[in-house]
Amino acid sequence: MKAEIITIGDELLIGQVIDTNSAWMAQQLNLLGIDVKQITSISDDRSHILNTLVDASSRADLIIITGGLGPTNDDITKKTLCEYFNTNLVFNELMYLNIQSLFKSLGLQVTEINKAQAEIPENCEPILNSCGTAPGMWFEQNGKVYVSMPGVPFEMKQMMENSILPKLKIKYHLEFVCHKTILTQGIGESFLSEIIAGWEKELPTFIKLAYLPSPGIVRLRLTAKGIDEMKIKNEIKRQTEVLKLLIPDYIYGYDHDKLEAIIGNLLKNNKQTLATAESCTGGYIAHLITGIPGSSSYYKGSLVCYANEIKSKLLHIDEERIIRNGAVSEEVVQQMALNIKNLFNVDYAIATSGIAGPDGGTEVKPVGTTWIAIADKSGVFAKKFTFGDNRERNIQKASITALNLLRKRIID
Amino acid sequence: MKAEIITIGDELLIGQVIDTNSAWMAQQLNLLGIDVKQITSISDDRSHILNTLVDASSRADLIIITGGLGPTNDDITKKTLCEYFNTNLVFNELMYLNIQSLFKSLGLQVTEINKAQAEIPENCEPILNSCGTAPGMWFEQNGKVYVSMPGVPFEMKQMMENSILPKLKIKYHLEFVCHKTILTQGIGESFLSEIIAGWEKELPTFIKLAYLPSPGIVRLRLTAKGIDEMKIKNEIKRQTEVLKLLIPDYIYGYDHDKLEAIIGNLLKNNKQTLATAESCTGGYIAHLITGIPGSSSYYKGSLVCYANEIKSKLLHIDEERIIRNGAVSEEVVQQMALNIKNLFNVDYAIATSGIAGPDGGTEVKPVGTTWIAIADKSGVFAKKFTFGDNRERNIQKASITALNLLRKRIID
Repeated sequence: MKAEIITIGDELLIGQVIDTNSAWMAQQLNLLGIDVKQITSISDDRSHILNTLVDASSRADLIIITGGLGPTNDDITKKTLCEYFNTNLVFNELMYLNIQSLFKSLGLQVTEINKAQAEIPENCEPILNSCGTAPGMWFEQNGKVYVSMPGVPFEMKQMMENSILPKLKIKYHLEFVCHKTILTQGIGESFLSEIIAGWEKELPTFIKLAYLPSPGIVRLRLTAKGIDEMKIKNEIKRQTEVLKLLIPDYIYGYDHDKLEAIIGNLLKNNKQTLATAESCTGGYIAHLITGIPGSSSYYKGSLVCYANEIKSKLLHIDEERIIRNGAVSEEVVQQMALNIKNLFNVDYAIATSGIAGPDGGTEVKPVGTTWIAIADKSGVFAKKFTFGDNRERNIQKASITALNLLRKRIID
Repeated sequence: MKAEIITIGDELLIGQVIDTNSAWMAQQLNLLGIDVKQITSISDDRSHILNTLVDASSRADLIIITGGLGPTNDDITKKTLCEYFNTNLVFNELMYLNIQSLFKSLGLQVTEINKAQAEIPENCEPILNSCGTAPGMWFEQNGKVYVSMPGVPFEMKQMMENSILPKLKIKYHLEFVCHKTILTQGIGESFLSEIIAGWEKELPTFIKLAYLPSPGIVRLRLTAKGIDEMKIKNEIKRQTEVLKLLIPDYIYGYDHDKLEAIIGNLLKNNKQTLATAESCTGGYIAHLITGIPGSSSYYKGSLVCYANEIKSKLLHIDEERIIRNGAVSEEVVQQMALNIKNLFNVDYAIATSGIAGPDGGTEVKPVGTTWIAIADKSGVFAKKFTFGDNRERNIQKASITALNLLRKRIID
């Protein structure tokens, strides 16, 4: 079972947009046991699209196409697919209802060019776009499947997850594939690989291990493939248990778990509340926590005290303490956590203070130096970290690390 | 002058690595006036590489290849290029000296497999790799140029900048290309296209327009190409001025401008300060602002008052007002902006209050309903928006919209 991905859009060819869709789709297809043979990015050009479709279908059984479905004139994928399949556009009432309800929810009238988005090639099966106006399309011809989706990442992703991947599972007899992703925090990729090297070497040949690092987090993905579903599932489960014994302090969750959601569930179950006092993380911890629906039931808010004046005036940190130790210090971050806990009247509090960079570093406190404190009813503790020299990554790492410190404190 | 990019590596096809090289190379080639017709990602597979080279050279004059030049057995690009050009590997003394000096600087001896990296196809011109062991290669055959480089981004980039791009400039007489991206906020793609339809139709044929939407923002990209550099630059400038007159209220910047950086510069130049009071945006505005290096000189911080109790206790919003109007109301958001301005003692304040979803909506205030207020020395104003039903996008749209309201207020 071979697939090819075709991404269409001038913005890809002039390098204005990095094609992140292809990697995501390739991952998803791989998880189903479908090999991606080629990823091709081309411009919104009729004859080039037609030639690429011919080439791809000579090599692959499944052709996934994204992009070029917008309402404006520069988007020509739909017209070109009609030409490829020798068919015409027909108005689809159901797709139009979807466009109407989308506009209605925005308090707007459907414009003519958006109405035209309800027109789809006669030979395709429409795929509902639950968060946009361009329908997806599923074609079958000469034993090959063609799928066309919008290039907007979140529209494409919901379409893949809700429609395309389930349809592919049903249509093809694919080898059984089982994945388990073990999420770790607080240890780098190379140190992790040293600890688990012996275990990795002893893995059965039908299980593969991949390291997937991102700022502050290393995900370990186990992939097993084969015919015997039970055997595969049991072995993945067994290996995950072994790994858990090897690195218990670093595992915080599995698969799609998010630290902020794990913490949310812990707090909700315990009927406890949380607040944050953020200096170097500048509101990013609050943003992560409030990204979770329903977070208002346990999260009261944050004081982003970027200026020292705000730390002393609103968070009541002694000015003298800031002058004596610097804002990036154990003393200040501990007081920040204790004071925000009292001020917001919550069970748990997180505080951060660090030098995100690129400026502000010194010999003693280089860029990346970060103090994180956690306060609860039994008191407060703080830990110092030295991250890197990249501002964006320092903010991410500090936030993820702070959330994991809180998680450990709650479950202790 | 047409180019194609071929990126080689299994990691791209399983989606483990996002191909960021292609976008960067495409940008660089575009700036030289070289059109990239296709970007193709394939695995480390001999026959697939050979076929892709044949196909690419049937369409393009320049073929840029990255990846597959590592010292291990899975990297087969060099061998396969020998096959394609019907030539052999020969040992290159100069490339070996480079490898030796690299190992010496690391205090290491050159290993046998690294020594083999000094072998290059007999028909190529070697390109020095100043930060790695794999040489680049420049081939010419039947009037086409082929360039092979390592896939490691920083090795590829230095090779492009120091060798490949200068060589291309000398070798070809290239057409001049000019891009201008106009950044708009506060209007959807389809409404925008209706306003500028007449202008778009009258654009000279050598200028192309593309719509690039993202949450809360639509970017309009003008691309002009031709021989007369002055004429093209002037026409792009003129068309940008015309567009500015058509949609003055929606344009906030150009090219790589960020709203939070634009605001930062305005505040810095005016020696003014800013604070935010965020409910529905949950710290995302603070996160955007503090993502800009040096933002501590004008941004004092944020009160993320997620719980109503925090709004009344710390931001001193009358409880009765919240009960009477609801937290998502003009009255409350205005008072939030005024009070945070006074509390933080700043020149400007932003306040947000809305229903991000998925829960919490009512008939009168559906999910997506958002009030945004801006306060300054002359008072306060608030505007109501109805975004969509996606929590993540609502947070993004509300934050971007709030930043743009502030920008307009500052420049007024």
